[in-house]
Amino acid sequence: MATGHLAHIRRAPAGGRLRLGFVGGGRGGLVGDWHASGARLSNRWDIVAGALSSDPERAALSAQDWAIAPDRAYGDWRDMARAEAARADGIDAVVVCTPNHTHHPIAAGFLDAGIDVICDKPMTNSVEEAQDLRTRTGGSGPTLLLTYPYVHHAMVRQARAMVAAGEIGELRQIRIEYLQDGSMHAAGPDDKGQLWRRDPATAGRSSAVADIGTHAYHMLHHVTGREVEALRAEFHTCGAPQPLEDTAFVSLRLTGGVPVLMHISQAAPGQFCGFRFHIWGSAGGLSWDQEYPEDLRHTPLDGPERIVRRGQGAGIVPEAAQLVHLPRGHGEALTDAWANLYAALAIAIGQRRAGQTADLEGLCLSGADEGLQGVRFVHACADSHARGGAWTDLGPSGW
Amino acid sequence: MATGHLAHIRRAPAGGRLRLGFVGGGRGGLVGDWHASGARLSNRWDIVAGALSSDPERAALSAQDWAIAPDRAYGDWRDMARAEAARADGIDAVVVCTPNHTHHPIAAGFLDAGIDVICDKPMTNSVEEAQDLRTRTGGSGPTLLLTYPYVHHAMVRQARAMVAAGEIGELRQIRIEYLQDGSMHAAGPDDKGQLWRRDPATAGRSSAVADIGTHAYHMLHHVTGREVEALRAEFHTCGAPQPLEDTAFVSLRLTGGVPVLMHISQAAPGQFCGFRFHIWGSAGGLSWDQEYPEDLRHTPLDGPERIVRRGQGAGIVPEAAQLVHLPRGHGEALTDAWANLYAALAIAIGQRRAGQTADLEGLCLSGADEGLQGVRFVHACADSHARGGAWTDLGPSGW
Amino acid sequence: MATGHLAHIRRAPAGGRLRLGFVGGGRGGLVGDWHASGARLSNRWDIVAGALSSDPERAALSAQDWAIAPDRAYGDWRDMARAEAARADGIDAVVVCTPNHTHHPIAAGFLDAGIDVICDKPMTNSVEEAQDLRTRTGGSGPTLLLTYPYVHHAMVRQARAMVAAGEIGELRQIRIEYLQDGSMHAAGPDDKGQLWRRDPATAGRSSAVADIGTHAYHMLHHVTGREVEALRAEFHTCGAPQPLEDTAFVSLRLTGGVPVLMHISQAAPGQFCGFRFHIWGSAGGLSWDQEYPEDLRHTPLDGPERIVRRGQGAGIVPEAAQLVHLPRGHGEALTDAWANLYAALAIAIGQRRAGQTADLEGLCLSGADEGLQGVRFVHACADSHARGGAWTDLGPSGW
Amino acid sequence: MATGHLAHIRRAPAGGRLRLGFVGGGRGGLVGDWHASGARLSNRWDIVAGALSSDPERAALSAQDWAIAPDRAYGDWRDMARAEAARADGIDAVVVCTPNHTHHPIAAGFLDAGIDVICDKPMTNSVEEAQDLRTRTGGSGPTLLLTYPYVHHAMVRQARAMVAAGEIGELRQIRIEYLQDGSMHAAGPDDKGQLWRRDPATAGRSSAVADIGTHAYHMLHHVTGREVEALRAEFHTCGAPQPLEDTAFVSLRLTGGVPVLMHISQAAPGQFCGFRFHIWGSAGGLSWDQEYPEDLRHTPLDGPERIVRRGQGAGIVPEAAQLVHLPRGHGEALTDAWANLYAALAIAIGQRRAGQTADLEGLCLSGADEGLQGVRFVHACADSHARGGAWTDLGPSGW
Repeated sequence: MATGHLAHIRRAPAGGRLRLGFVGGGRGGLVGDWHASGARLSNRWDIVAGALSSDPERAALSAQDWAIAPDRAYGDWRDMARAEAARADGIDAVVVCTPNHTHHPIAAGFLDAGIDVICDKPMTNSVEEAQDLRTRTGGSGPTLLLTYPYVHHAMVRQARAMVAAGEIGELRQIRIEYLQDGSMHAAGPDDKGQLWRRDPATAGRSSAVADIGTHAYHMLHHVTGREVEALRAEFHTCGAPQPLEDTAFVSLRLTGGVPVLMHISQAAPGQFCGFRFHIWGSAGGLSWDQEYPEDLRHTPLDGPERIVRRGQGAGIVPEAAQLVHLPRGHGEALTDAWANLYAALAIAIGQRRAGQTADLEGLCLSGADEGLQGVRFVHACADSHARGGAWTDLGPSGW
Repeated sequence: MATGHLAHIRRAPAGGRLRLGFVGGGRGGLVGDWHASGARLSNRWDIVAGALSSDPERAALSAQDWAIAPDRAYGDWRDMARAEAARADGIDAVVVCTPNHTHHPIAAGFLDAGIDVICDKPMTNSVEEAQDLRTRTGGSGPTLLLTYPYVHHAMVRQARAMVAAGEIGELRQIRIEYLQDGSMHAAGPDDKGQLWRRDPATAGRSSAVADIGTHAYHMLHHVTGREVEALRAEFHTCGAPQPLEDTAFVSLRLTGGVPVLMHISQAAPGQFCGFRFHIWGSAGGLSWDQEYPEDLRHTPLDGPERIVRRGQGAGIVPEAAQLVHLPRGHGEALTDAWANLYAALAIAIGQRRAGQTADLEGLCLSGADEGLQGVRFVHACADSHARGGAWTDLGPSGW
Repeated sequence: MATGHLAHIRRAPAGGRLRLGFVGGGRGGLVGDWHASGARLSNRWDIVAGALSSDPERAALSAQDWAIAPDRAYGDWRDMARAEAARADGIDAVVVCTPNHTHHPIAAGFLDAGIDVICDKPMTNSVEEAQDLRTRTGGSGPTLLLTYPYVHHAMVRQARAMVAAGEIGELRQIRIEYLQDGSMHAAGPDDKGQLWRRDPATAGRSSAVADIGTHAYHMLHHVTGREVEALRAEFHTCGAPQPLEDTAFVSLRLTGGVPVLMHISQAAPGQFCGFRFHIWGSAGGLSWDQEYPEDLRHTPLDGPERIVRRGQGAGIVPEAAQLVHLPRGHGEALTDAWANLYAALAIAIGQRRAGQTADLEGLCLSGADEGLQGVRFVHACADSHARGGAWTDLGPSGW
Repeated sequence: MATGHLAHIRRAPAGGRLRLGFVGGGRGGLVGDWHASGARLSNRWDIVAGALSSDPERAALSAQDWAIAPDRAYGDWRDMARAEAARADGIDAVVVCTPNHTHHPIAAGFLDAGIDVICDKPMTNSVEEAQDLRTRTGGSGPTLLLTYPYVHHAMVRQARAMVAAGEIGELRQIRIEYLQDGSMHAAGPDDKGQLWRRDPATAGRSSAVADIGTHAYHMLHHVTGREVEALRAEFHTCGAPQPLEDTAFVSLRLTGGVPVLMHISQAAPGQFCGFRFHIWGSAGGLSWDQEYPEDLRHTPLDGPERIVRRGQGAGIVPEAAQLVHLPRGHGEALTDAWANLYAALAIAIGQRRAGQTADLEGLCLSGADEGLQGVRFVHACADSHARGGAWTDLGPSGW
């Protein structure tokens, strides 16, 4: 049997685990359990408080599901912010995993209460809200960090390191796609997650691009280290009728002129979480597929394809090796990526609480600056589409 | 062992095999052997004459390679047209597989000599030349047929029939790609096939789109039965420096408003003949990859993915079954597709010679009308690119 | 986006999480973290005590890694058994993940202290020890449960249900393999996990069959519901020299005469955790590969292959659906299987503590009876090999 | 576009193509067209004569299918041997692709008439017949060559060269399998190919082992260069009832003590031509699958898996490169392997006719010696099975 090890990031810190609270995420929601599972598996957080639902009964049942003590199961996030801020053993951070249009007031409320915020993407619906949140962070006060889990897969980290080391030469072109099929069906009356994602009142100007395109945009930046200079987008509705797009064809130009073709769709039957990229450079290519996340395909120009596989040794670079918890072939998947993310969040928030500057770059975490840029990406796509697919800049500044 | 059979299309006709000549295709070229292998494997043609190279020594050696009698190994295609037209046992058809800019005079010359022409794609470099060839065909005279081999894979035929039968419902969106990596390297002084493909004097306004984009365009029409109404294209040069594009991002709109995202590149390291499509409809999807041509992936909405595999039975429709020569699992590949194409060409030309109207639609063959439309596609891409990616119509008429 | 849910088995019980202790599993070991991660992710256990290493410093550091309070970090498992049995808030169960030859005294010690035991496989090295442990369980006293995680993958559960429902007809033949490559290298002086596995003094009569063959044996029974009547085995050493086998070719006969071909090896370069089975019946086949655990391949006789994929709907049966935590395409892997196992263990131990009979069959858990049978399998393989590959029965009784 | 070439073996020799005749292979049979397609695609043979069926009408129609002149379409193979031997332009070789029990008289008849014989495998049903045919060949007289097409895949040649060059180190263990599903169904009254294969009167002592196990046995020798010293076999009937086996589990020992596990079955639903091997050595492994013949998977110990793909360059050795006809990614499959075999047969028979010693070893061809050894393999399996799976030698001599 191959020898593996649990990477050190899943060791609880010497001072013990941090305390985590949730707003949203209770029964009936989709992503709350993803965050919570990541936090548990990271071995760096205890989930001790929550305002898990706006429905009081559901909030109580959800708190029991997560073994949250009744006195820390709140019916309203404002009460939670106040009470937790006042406790000696109050939460060290709060996760905001509510519908997008509510991110701003909740995140602002916890930041004002002095509590660090972990916020699902996109950070907000409007650029103005995003700018406002950015102004509330920085300096020595509480911080806001976004949750982009896919970049915390070991083999994405491997890809990033290989690109940075020049193993595929100069970047030449990229294709990235995120394809699903959930929009083929009309949302049912109980399918709250779909209802708010398709309603302009709650989702803003975009549905699929805001929901999954933001992951693709973030991955582009993460793996290449480049910024998006400009883009062109076409929006389509290919699935069940709805006012917002379920599909987008986007062409982008990265710093240095690298062309990118992006395909975003939630109306592609048979595609479930088809998040994939191909990065081609002057000396080779790299391909990764979220549905088979253990394998990074490396195609050196003029040599056989190599399947670089998660595990220790056999070409795995240190940046990836620190995310390896099980030996090669003993699969890790999405919850492991979430756990890697939550371990990184614990480390960053621990650094900040210890008076240090959090090493966001080294931990591959995104703060409010990147959150704002992600919101600008969504708006640039919507603007380009509205202007017939014209080239559109992302805004006054990059990341 | 599963029972298979050699589909009837590989039976020689009762009157014996037809006689075939070649212009181009000798030693040093790439595609001549592909055509010749297809013709041999089809069991419907004897290759008996050729002007296989403009270099006399190479022409003679090439004729010997193919067991062509010395007196029918010509040094010049004009001599060949004249002599073969005069023989009682002259060729029934000529294959033109020379560089694109020479297609027009050669094809015109053989048509004028009364000999049917089988022409590689694209039919010509200019729209005017294409229109001219079209005017020379039709009626009871000799005909010109294009060689698009990929649509003669059994499982492409299966896809076409399933789309037509409504098995994936209404078409909703399509992605098609043709990716290779040959343009990563500069063409060497002996690499004639690359030299003319990258030189505007011989290749015209486009390199990659003309070379492989035309296959993707043709496949779109073949599998969906729809026409391209308009398109937008961006050209890029991602590989070795050259004056023409090696990469194109194209967005198309088919009849009925179906959006298509097309990715064409000869500068994608690790991609060799990555010709693939996904067709998504209201009831499911179909995916096919030329590099694994035996498997058609069918993803019904709400049911498990099905791998429909070439062979008799197990969901194979009659249109595909007639192209099945070996039992399931006993692989057929590209030469089999070429052989299917050459069998169809023999049947069509046999029909014409017998005074019948050739059943091009039923045989999935393309005549000069489609050849012209393919040339228009290339020009529409180049025009759109020149106009900053503006929407561009294909021309006065569709197929 | 597809709608998923966290299956109810990851909800903490109304009475709160159970308390878990560990013997073994600290820094330097391999499998301790696998158990611990599964327990954490299951959301049904708090790890509160441990004798994590026989080395005191390592034991203390390991306890800190897992956030175990210093007063419950024991240096000796005997002290732990005594102290925990005496505490009002003592552990509800102990995990024994030490080298195999120590399972018997430790398990016996905790059972005698009235504490339920969760024991890694194989249960013991000798049949006598296994029989002894069996006699110590049963009735209303503490129980012993084995950890076979692979049968807790959702798609293995799906396979089992499909076999039971007759979807592949009568069973006709099976192939099962578990292939790795760790034995290609000599064990280094610090590689304790390999040193004891290859030493007859600690590993007993078998290395690879005891280590991974037991998983294959257990899977056979689990998926088919049949018992092994007899077997023939050949042992080989194909990797680095060592006194015990690293490879076994085994032929088995299941109840009803179904032939099985089993291949076990830890000396197959390029194989990491290649645990795979094909089950063929009169109406079709099922294939599963641990390295790609989301996909169950179903090959109906005379119909296209179907890829039944983990997720809700699309052919997933209720037995599998209850193990689905993330939507289709959002990958689950080995830690999820461990978490499913630890959830089942919590339910079973909760049932016993509530005075009920634990529903081992329904929860797909194995008690001491199956543990004994697993030890008999190892000895039957060794006996057959010693007798030149003669047919060998497993023992006086089946499961 | 990548540059490819038609390997020189598909060039007709300077003296023109050889003349080929067939006994068997007409309408209603399975494999005749495979041989004929290979011969045509090889560009080295003209098929000019045949006794294609014992049914006269079928023989005449089949001759027309293949464009054989009526005066060389024989009703009886004896007439054909006599007439062709007498013609100045008589056939250079005859293909015998009739049921196995008729191979001996037909092959003997043509050898006696001075005509080289190309015989399908297994060479005969009995060892005695095989020995008799061997005595009729050798020296300067006509020769008999067997048709094992799978070893003529380019990537099998690549595997063989890599093993010989020590790229995977010392051989340590092998697994080889050939799995199909045709025996799940009873043979229908018109399914002549199945009827004779399952009838001991025509098939001899074995069905599946004789039909496809012989390919596996031959591949073992081809790829490793080792001989089988002894084997143990179990026969099973897992599909439709029949007197002979449809499944065999075989354990073999190669020269040097290398253990091999072989699985042969025609009763595995969903398996069509699942001929696969894994060869593991001290320094790595090689895996090949006939259904995806372009890819040879190379797993160096301690490095990433490499997918060595058919094409020029990128690690392809000269032994394989000479079988490369299409550029990488432009698929070759089974008919290409047959064509490579028929090219080799033409070269060998041309050598013999020119008075040289045919280079069977270099051409990877098998003569009567190997044919005899293949028959011995079948009998050794049957003998071992009859003796309860006892170790059984192959016979007095190896290859």
